[in-house]
Amino acid sequence: MKELKTLLKEIKGYKTKMFGKDLLLTWEKTTDELKQILAIADLLKLMRDNNISAKVFDSGLAVSLFRDNSTRTRFSFASACNLLGLAVQDLDEGKSQIAHGETVRETANMISFLSEVVGIRDDMYLGAGNTYMREVGEALDDGFKQKVLPQRPAVVNLQCDIDHPTQSMADLGWLKEHFGGLDNLKGKKIAMTWAYSPSYGKPLSVPQGIIGLMTRFGMDVHLAHPEGYNLIPDVMKVAQKNAKASGGKFTAGTSMEEAFKGADIVYPKSWAPYSVMEKRTVLLRKGDHDGLKALEKECLANNAKFKSWECTEKMMKLTNKGKALYMHCLPADITDVSCKAGEVAASVFDRYRIETYKEAGYKPYMIAAMILTSRFANVPEMLEKLVEKDRKRIKI
Amino acid sequence: MKELKTLLKEIKGYKTKMFGKDLLLTWEKTTDELKQILAIADLLKLMRDNNISAKVFDSGLAVSLFRDNSTRTRFSFASACNLLGLAVQDLDEGKSQIAHGETVRETANMISFLSEVVGIRDDMYLGAGNTYMREVGEALDDGFKQKVLPQRPAVVNLQCDIDHPTQSMADLGWLKEHFGGLDNLKGKKIAMTWAYSPSYGKPLSVPQGIIGLMTRFGMDVHLAHPEGYNLIPDVMKVAQKNAKASGGKFTAGTSMEEAFKGADIVYPKSWAPYSVMEKRTVLLRKGDHDGLKALEKECLANNAKFKSWECTEKMMKLTNKGKALYMHCLPADITDVSCKAGEVAASVFDRYRIETYKEAGYKPYMIAAMILTSRFANVPEMLEKLVEKDRKRIKI
Amino acid sequence: MKELKTLLKEIKGYKTKMFGKDLLLTWEKTTDELKQILAIADLLKLMRDNNISAKVFDSGLAVSLFRDNSTRTRFSFASACNLLGLAVQDLDEGKSQIAHGETVRETANMISFLSEVVGIRDDMYLGAGNTYMREVGEALDDGFKQKVLPQRPAVVNLQCDIDHPTQSMADLGWLKEHFGGLDNLKGKKIAMTWAYSPSYGKPLSVPQGIIGLMTRFGMDVHLAHPEGYNLIPDVMKVAQKNAKASGGKFTAGTSMEEAFKGADIVYPKSWAPYSVMEKRTVLLRKGDHDGLKALEKECLANNAKFKSWECTEKMMKLTNKGKALYMHCLPADITDVSCKAGEVAASVFDRYRIETYKEAGYKPYMIAAMILTSRFANVPEMLEKLVEKDRKRIKI
Repeated sequence: MKELKTLLKEIKGYKTKMFGKDLLLTWEKTTDELKQILAIADLLKLMRDNNISAKVFDSGLAVSLFRDNSTRTRFSFASACNLLGLAVQDLDEGKSQIAHGETVRETANMISFLSEVVGIRDDMYLGAGNTYMREVGEALDDGFKQKVLPQRPAVVNLQCDIDHPTQSMADLGWLKEHFGGLDNLKGKKIAMTWAYSPSYGKPLSVPQGIIGLMTRFGMDVHLAHPEGYNLIPDVMKVAQKNAKASGGKFTAGTSMEEAFKGADIVYPKSWAPYSVMEKRTVLLRKGDHDGLKALEKECLANNAKFKSWECTEKMMKLTNKGKALYMHCLPADITDVSCKAGEVAASVFDRYRIETYKEAGYKPYMIAAMILTSRFANVPEMLEKLVEKDRKRIKI
Repeated sequence: MKELKTLLKEIKGYKTKMFGKDLLLTWEKTTDELKQILAIADLLKLMRDNNISAKVFDSGLAVSLFRDNSTRTRFSFASACNLLGLAVQDLDEGKSQIAHGETVRETANMISFLSEVVGIRDDMYLGAGNTYMREVGEALDDGFKQKVLPQRPAVVNLQCDIDHPTQSMADLGWLKEHFGGLDNLKGKKIAMTWAYSPSYGKPLSVPQGIIGLMTRFGMDVHLAHPEGYNLIPDVMKVAQKNAKASGGKFTAGTSMEEAFKGADIVYPKSWAPYSVMEKRTVLLRKGDHDGLKALEKECLANNAKFKSWECTEKMMKLTNKGKALYMHCLPADITDVSCKAGEVAASVFDRYRIETYKEAGYKPYMIAAMILTSRFANVPEMLEKLVEKDRKRIKI
Repeated sequence: MKELKTLLKEIKGYKTKMFGKDLLLTWEKTTDELKQILAIADLLKLMRDNNISAKVFDSGLAVSLFRDNSTRTRFSFASACNLLGLAVQDLDEGKSQIAHGETVRETANMISFLSEVVGIRDDMYLGAGNTYMREVGEALDDGFKQKVLPQRPAVVNLQCDIDHPTQSMADLGWLKEHFGGLDNLKGKKIAMTWAYSPSYGKPLSVPQGIIGLMTRFGMDVHLAHPEGYNLIPDVMKVAQKNAKASGGKFTAGTSMEEAFKGADIVYPKSWAPYSVMEKRTVLLRKGDHDGLKALEKECLANNAKFKSWECTEKMMKLTNKGKALYMHCLPADITDVSCKAGEVAASVFDRYRIETYKEAGYKPYMIAAMILTSRFANVPEMLEKLVEKDRKRIKI
C-alpha cells in the first residue's frame, strides 16, 4: 500500500533519540521527534484500518496509575497497550501496601519486573505530578542499570500538573489531518482561551500543553484568560521561546474577543488560576477540608464574574470567515446540556461534535507511538517489518 | 471431527441477519437467529473441548459496564471476550468523568475507538436499562457512520429491566443438551414460578426472559406467582404471541401447585412485583432513602405472606413422575443454607446442584456467540475457517 | 543455548507428581518437587531474558482474589499469568453476589468455567485462609470430576494464615542464585528474627514459610523473637522434622543477638504473636471494632517494649564477617524512612536494597512455575518444546 510506504519513509527520515527515554513534556523533545511520533501514530491508525496487527509484544504488563478520575485517557491507554500486546494492570494505591510508607523507588521497581510501560495521571498537586513521574523514571533507570529489571519500562505522562502530552499530541494529530499536513498549520491562528465553567480546580495542563506544543509548528498562538487566571510562568516562557524558534507567534491577553478575532482554530476551556492551584495544593496536602471548601466557594464566586467567557455563536462569528475549527479535550461543559451556563453554547458544540470525537480518537495512537519510541531502539525498521509481515489483527 | 462438521453444517443452514445488530431482547430475533446462536455456542464449546482456538481477534477491547453487582455474568463476559481474544476493560462510572454531565452519546464513542464489544448490566431502574442500551447502540451506529469509530462494537445485554438474554439463552442451551435437542422441547411443560425469598427488589428480567424465550420453541410455559407479583404487561403479550406462533402454550396463574403439576421443568425464583419496581425506580431516582426503606419493609412483609412458595420435595412430587428438571439462574436462596426460608429446599437444590452449574456453564459461550454474530458478516464461513486452521488453544 | 539445556535436563531429572494438585504449604511437597519448581522458575527467567515466549495458553482466565492489600504479590501474580498467556480477572467480593450467601463450592465453579488458575490471598483470619483455599480446591476437584468444568484450575496460595509459599520460594530462588546453587546452602546459618515495627497484626506466614522451607535444604535455621511472639506450634514441629530429615538445624530462641551471631543470612521482620492473631480473628469475625482498637493499643504498647529488635549496623557486625545477606519480603519498616523506629536501620537497608529487589523479582517466576506444574501432566517435555519452538516474546 502506497500510503503505508510513504509514512514508513517519512518515519525513517527523522533523526531521533527517544529509546529508553520518556516523553514527560513535549518541549523536551526535538521537533523531529514530535513529528516522528505523529507519523508513527498515523501509521498505526492506518495499519489498524487495514487489519494489520501492531502486536509487537506477546506478553508484558502495562501499569496504569490514575490519581484522578478519567474515562477517555484511561480507555486510550488501555487501547494503546492492548494494540501492542500488553495487558493493563491497575495500580490501585488504595488496595496496595504503598500506604505502608514504601518509597517511590521501591514501588516503581516492584511493579515493573515484567512490565513494559507505566502510565501515570497525576494532575491534582501543583509541582508534584511531573516530579513524581520523573522520580518513577529515575527509579526505573536505576533498577534497569542494577539488573533488577530485565527492561526499562516507558513512563507515559497521562496528564500531570504541567503538561498533558498525550492530549496535545492527539490535538496536533487531528489538526494535521484536518488541515492536510503540519506545513499547513504555519501561520494559522489558534485561540487557546479560558472559558467559564461552574466548577473549579481544573488542571492547567491542557492550556499549557497547547501553548507549549502549537508554538513549535509556526502557528500564531493566542492565549486569553481573565485577569488572575494565569498559567505557570515557566511554561509561558517556553511558549515564547518556541514561537520565536519556529517562526510562529505567541500572544497572551485578557480578551476572548481579541483571541477569537480571525482565528482558524478556537480551544475555549476552563481552568483554575495558577495561584488557586498553589493554595489548593497546600490545603490538599494538609487535608484541610474547611479550607478547601472556603477556597472552592471563593473560586466559584470569582469564576461567576466571567460567565461571558463562553464560546457562543456570536463569538464564533469573530473567527476567520466565522468558521474556525472548534476544539476541546472533552468532556466540555455545554450550556443547557451539562450545566446551566458553561464553556460553549450547545449549537456550537453540536456543529463540531463529530470533529471533537475525531480529535479524541487520536489519543490511543499517540500513546502507542510514545511507547514504541521509548521501548525500541530502531522503530522505523521495526515498523517496516511489522508492515511486511502483515499479520492480521482479525485473524479470519 | 464429525460433530464439528455437523454443527458447522447446521450453522450454515440458518438464514440470519445479525451483523451490526445487537441482541437486546430475544423476541427481536427470528427463531432461526436464536437457533444459530445456540449452535454457535455449542460449536465454541466443542472447539474448546478439543483445544481448538477461537481467538479471532488479535487485539481489541471489550468494555464491561456493570451498574449492579455480578459474579457469574461478569466472569462469563470476561471468559467469552478472552476466548475470542479481547481484553476486558471495566468502565467504572465512579472513577470516570461521566459524572461531569457527559452524554451517553459521547461516552459511548469515547470508550469505543478500539473496542469490539460493550457489555452492559443495567437492571435496577424499570424502563431505563434496555433504553440505555439502545441509546448506546444508536450512539455507536452514529459514531461508525460518521467515521469516528473504525468499527461498530456489539452491545451485549448482560441483564436489563426487561430481558436477560444471555441467561435465558444459556438456560435454553442447557435444555437443548439435557433433552437431546430443541425438537424434544416441544410440548414439554416448564413451570416458571415465583418463589419466596427474604429479599426484595430482584429484577423481573429472568422470568420475563424465560417466558419470552421458551414460548418460541413449542413449550408449554406455565407462569405462576402470588397475586400482585405481575410481570411487565407487554412481555406477557409477547409470550402469548410467541406461544401461538410456535404451537406452544402460555398459561399464567397464581398457584405454584398448578404450575408444577406434571411439569417437566421447574424454574422457581423470586422477583419483585412490577408495581413495586415502578415505585422503587421513582424513589431511587429521587435518592429517597427513607422512602426506599419504607418500601423495603412493606415488600418484605408482603413477601412473607408467601413463604409457602418454596420448591420443596412435596412440590417436586407434583411434577412429571416427580422428576422435573430443576433450574435456577443462581445464586438460589436455599432454605437453611443461605437463609432461614428461601426459594428451594436444600435437598431439592442439592440433587440438582450439578445440573444448575452446567446450566450456568453455557453463559460464556452464548455471550461469545452473540459477539461473533454481531461483529462478523459471514459467521458460518468464519467458523469453518477457524476449525480448519485448527490453531491450538493450549499451544503445547 | 547451553544454560537452557542444562536446566531442561535438571528439570527432567526430578520425579514429581504435581499435576492437578495445588501448592498450599511447601511442606506438603517433596524436596524434588520444590527443586523442580525452582529450576522451572530459573528456566522461565532465562527464557524471558532470551526473548523466548512462554505463552502456552492462547486464552484462559486467571482469577485473582485478594482479601488483603497487596502490591508486589498482585503484580507478581498478574505478571506470571500474563507471561503464560492468561488474562487476570479480579474477583471483587464487594462487587459480586457472593454476599447473597452463596457457598464457596458454588462460587469456585462459577468463576472457573474457562479459568486456568485461581490465585488467593487470605491471611487475616487465623485458621481460615488455608482452609478456604482447600475448600476452593475441593470444589474445583468436584466440578472437574462432575464435568461442570472442562479443566481443573490450579489454586495458588498468594499468602495464607500458615504459609506464604510464593514468597518463601522466591526467597529460596534468590538464595540459590546468590550462593551459587542449593548445595551451597547446606550448613549456612539463616536468622529468621522478629523485628520491631510500629504496626500490629502482621501475618505469621512469612516467618513460618521461611522456617518451614529453609529447613528442607540443610540450612542452620535460627528463629528468634521476644517472649510471647510465638508462631503456630504445628509449624514449629514441621521445621524441627524438616531439619532432622535434611541434616540441617532448627533452633528457636528469644535473643536477636544469638540468632545474628555468625549468621550468613538475616531475615528480620515484624509479626504479631500467635495468641494475638487468635484474639484478633475472634474480634474480626464479631466485627467488634472497640475490641479491635483495644487489642491494637495493647499490642502496640507491647511491641514498643522491643524496640531494640532492630537490624542495626551493630547487629550486622555480629554476623559472619559482618557481611550476612540481609533479606526482607518488602516493604520493610525502615527507621527514619518509613517510620521513626522500625525493623531495620536505613544504612543497612540501603546497602542491601538492590538485593531485596532481586529477591522480590523471583516471585513472578515462582508463581508461573507453580501454575505450570499444576496444570500440565508432563512439564519437562512441554518446556522442552517451548524452548525448541523458540517463539519470540517481542516479535520484532
